[in-house]
Amino acid sequence: MDICQDTPHSAESEEKPMDKIQIGQNFFIPMPVVLVGTQVNGKDNFMTVGWCARANANPPMIACGIGNHHYTPKGIAETKTFSVNIPSSALLEKTDYCGLVSGEKTDKSHVFDVFYGSLKTAPMIRECPVSLECRLVQAVPLPTNTLFIGEITGVYADGRVVKDGKPDFPAIDPVFLTMPDNRYWRLGEHAGDAWSAGKDLVQQSQKRIPKDGE
Amino acid sequence: MDICQDTPHSAESEEKPMDKIQIGQNFFIPMPVVLVGTQVNGKDNFMTVGWCARANANPPMIACGIGNHHYTPKGIAETKTFSVNIPSSALLEKTDYCGLVSGEKTDKSHVFDVFYGSLKTAPMIRECPVSLECRLVQAVPLPTNTLFIGEITGVYADGRVVKDGKPDFPAIDPVFLTMPDNRYWRLGEHAGDAWSAGKDLVQQSQKRIPKDGE
Repeated sequence: MDICQDTPHSAESEEKPMDKIQIGQNFFIPMPVVLVGTQVNGKDNFMTVGWCARANANPPMIACGIGNHHYTPKGIAETKTFSVNIPSSALLEKTDYCGLVSGEKTDKSHVFDVFYGSLKTAPMIRECPVSLECRLVQAVPLPTNTLFIGEITGVYADGRVVKDGKPDFPAIDPVFLTMPDNRYWRLGEHAGDAWSAGKDLVQQSQKRIPKDGE
Repeated sequence: MDICQDTPHSAESEEKPMDKIQIGQNFFIPMPVVLVGTQVNGKDNFMTVGWCARANANPPMIACGIGNHHYTPKGIAETKTFSVNIPSSALLEKTDYCGLVSGEKTDKSHVFDVFYGSLKTAPMIRECPVSLECRLVQAVPLPTNTLFIGEITGVYADGRVVKDGKPDFPAIDPVFLTMPDNRYWRLGEHAGDAWSAGKDLVQQSQKRIPKDGE
C-alpha cells in the first residue's frame, strides 16, 4: 500500500462526488451501548444510552448526549452525579428494556442489583462487568438534547474481566447499536493493533524522496 | 428472566462492592473509529479519532473530543467546519497511520482521494464508505481536550453500503478501538434487535401484581 495517490487530484474529482449517494443528515455512527444510572427523587433509575464517548484525557471525563424529554436528566440535575455501566451481551434483554420504558412511569430500581462507590448518589449495576461513577462537570444544552460531561471518579470491574490490572474487552463482551436498522452487535474479530498497524506507512513517508518543488 | 431480583437489596450489598475491583479512573469505553477531516492552512488533513458520538437529535449533531495539542483543532478554528469519515477495516493501515503522525510535521493531504460537498472547507475521504460534513456549532473547552460539536449538514455514502436508502453496517465494516490494550476490532455477530429484545420484560412488568405496600 502506498500512502500517495498515483494520480494527482483533479479539481473535478475533488468537487463532484459522483460515486457517492447523499442519505440525508441523520446518520448515526456505530454506538457502544451503556446504561446511565441516576437517582431521581431518591430512587435508582437506569437508562440505555448510545451517545457516549470520552471527552477529556486528564482528568478523565466522559460525555453522554441525552434527550431533554427523558427522566435521567432530572436525576443528574438533582445529584450532579451519574454512573456509566457497560453491559455485556448476556444483559441484552434488560439493557433493551431500560431503553423501552421511562423511569417516569416505570420503577426500574429493582431491574438490577445496585451498588454504590465513593459518590453516594450514582447507582451502579453489579451485573455489568464495568461501571464508572461520574461527577457532573458541565451540562451543554443543545436544541433537543443535553451533553452531560462527567469526570470519572471511580471505575469498578469484575475480577474476571481484568487482566494484569487492565480491562479485557472480549471478556467484557460489550454491545454496539447501529441505527436506523436498530440492531445490536457484539465485538468482532481482532483487526489489528493501534499505533502499530500504520507503522510501515510512517517509514514509507519518511523515506519518500521529495519531488521537485516540494 | 425476571426483571425483579428474587432477594431484596440489603444495605450491605448496596454499599460494599466487595466483588468488584477498582481500576483507577482512566477507563475507555469501546470506541467507533473515525477520521476527522479539516483544512489547516488551506491543506487537507486527517486525524484518527476515537472519542466521537452523536450529541443532538434534531438538528443532527455529532461531538468529537480532540486533544488541544493536536493540529486538527487549528483547522476547525480556521474554517468552522470539519468532516467525520467512517473507515472500513480494509482502510485500517491508513487509518492507523493518520493517528501516528501529526499534520504539523507530515503532509497527510495525499493519503486519501479527497472530495468536497456543500461545505467547501470540510475535506472528505472517497475511500471511506460513509462521510459526514459538519458545520461547527460549539467548541466546549475542557482541561486537555476540546469537545467540537458539529451539525451534520450532509452524509455521503457509497452505493454498495446503502440498502433501501439506509446504511448497511456489515457492508460499511466499521472499526472499533479498545484501550489501553490498543486493539482494533470489527463488528461482530448480530446480538439482537433494539427496542425489541426487551419487550417481554415490558409485558412482565405490566402484568406484575403489586406486592402489599407497593
